[in-house]
Amino acid sequence: MRSENAVPVAVPVTVPADAAEGTGPGLDEAEARDLAEAWLDTPFPPAARRLLIGAVEAFATRGYHATTTRDIAARAGLSPAGVYVHFPSKEDLLYQISLVGHRGTVRVVRAAASGIDDPADRLRAIIAAITSWHARYHTTARVINYEMSALTESHRSSIATLRREIDALVRQTLVDGVDRGAFDVPDVRGTTLALLSLTIDVARWFRATGPRAPEELGEFYGELALRLVGHRA
Amino acid sequence: MRSENAVPVAVPVTVPADAAEGTGPGLDEAEARDLAEAWLDTPFPPAARRLLIGAVEAFATRGYHATTTRDIAARAGLSPAGVYVHFPSKEDLLYQISLVGHRGTVRVVRAAASGIDDPADRLRAIIAAITSWHARYHTTARVINYEMSALTESHRSSIATLRREIDALVRQTLVDGVDRGAFDVPDVRGTTLALLSLTIDVARWFRATGPRAPEELGEFYGELALRLVGHRA
Repeated sequence: MRSENAVPVAVPVTVPADAAEGTGPGLDEAEARDLAEAWLDTPFPPAARRLLIGAVEAFATRGYHATTTRDIAARAGLSPAGVYVHFPSKEDLLYQISLVGHRGTVRVVRAAASGIDDPADRLRAIIAAITSWHARYHTTARVINYEMSALTESHRSSIATLRREIDALVRQTLVDGVDRGAFDVPDVRGTTLALLSLTIDVARWFRATGPRAPEELGEFYGELALRLVGHRA
Repeated sequence: MRSENAVPVAVPVTVPADAAEGTGPGLDEAEARDLAEAWLDTPFPPAARRLLIGAVEAFATRGYHATTTRDIAARAGLSPAGVYVHFPSKEDLLYQISLVGHRGTVRVVRAAASGIDDPADRLRAIIAAITSWHARYHTTARVINYEMSALTESHRSSIATLRREIDALVRQTLVDGVDRGAFDVPDVRGTTLALLSLTIDVARWFRATGPRAPEELGEFYGELALRLVGHRA
């Protein structure tokens, strides 16, 4: 889906040298492209989208608190005052990024789970979807997972609601699998947390230059998830 | 082991309200106490230890780049110039924290693996040790895992050597288990990464106020690890 006013978005591209070792500095080429594409579905005009992508890059590279609106504006090719035309504050930029990111995750998880009755097939599909999302948007995912404490209380609470929805979809799948005798899960809450943890940490180490593409990694993690829940085929 | 010059260390204590939802702001009481204790084994004099603990707290709360040496000094009850008596730079503080943290992990992993021949028992012990370390020192672990890109190239390379040692101990255990027919691991490299990922992400969500103590969580994750490697009892 491309909106009417789709224009090429200028994105600063850096490829981290230390793949698979700690966090990298910013967006790689693949994510920059995907991100520019992803934001076409949102109601933001092109300049606002450039600011959001510049903010992802700046927050990932320097951290939220060390980033100035001037820095974000420069990355978007705007004057510092240009930021406030589109967003009331730096915190609102972080919130919008978190909102788009979490809504995106909820959407792919719902789509993956939709219409699959078998708990094993559903769990595999859900974990594959969350994993490949975190691989594809690894810079964005680091920002929205690591900078949550910088949100205002009310914004953090809205994001927590979306996180609980993702958690509930995974937990319900585990409960269904246990009820039908397909899974062996002594601790549903702890195992749900471990499954989500596994997918979230992908954002820390994933690099587009690594051995597996996001979808391949998703398939692999889908199989690992079935092992974690003690799936009996 | 307490050194001769052990003195009570003043540590700012904050208990995050949003347990299990995103990253929290800083050290909780349990970690502050453990950290003060842990640093007694290092050669740093008391004022330097206060600076290191203040730096962990500041980096975790505001991020490395937004933290000033003035802020760290204030947390340690020293003048800004006092920092440079003990450390040449803010980056050196991060490096010393990373070094102590990674050496600590290597030490607990080696101790856990030592003398255990059976790959399943060894894997369970190693994963339990890494997990409880990341739970106990969750603020420190977030800093050393999320701020690696702020280290100089030469410091990052030293830390990478320690990380490779931890990785190698886990990977060798998987290889041993596969060789003896105890584990079923189609991808040793990918599964090693997933196992370490699971333990590292504990630092993101763990709170001392949660349902499991660090050692209990370690035991649980030791069992999850055996599931991930397809352990046949």
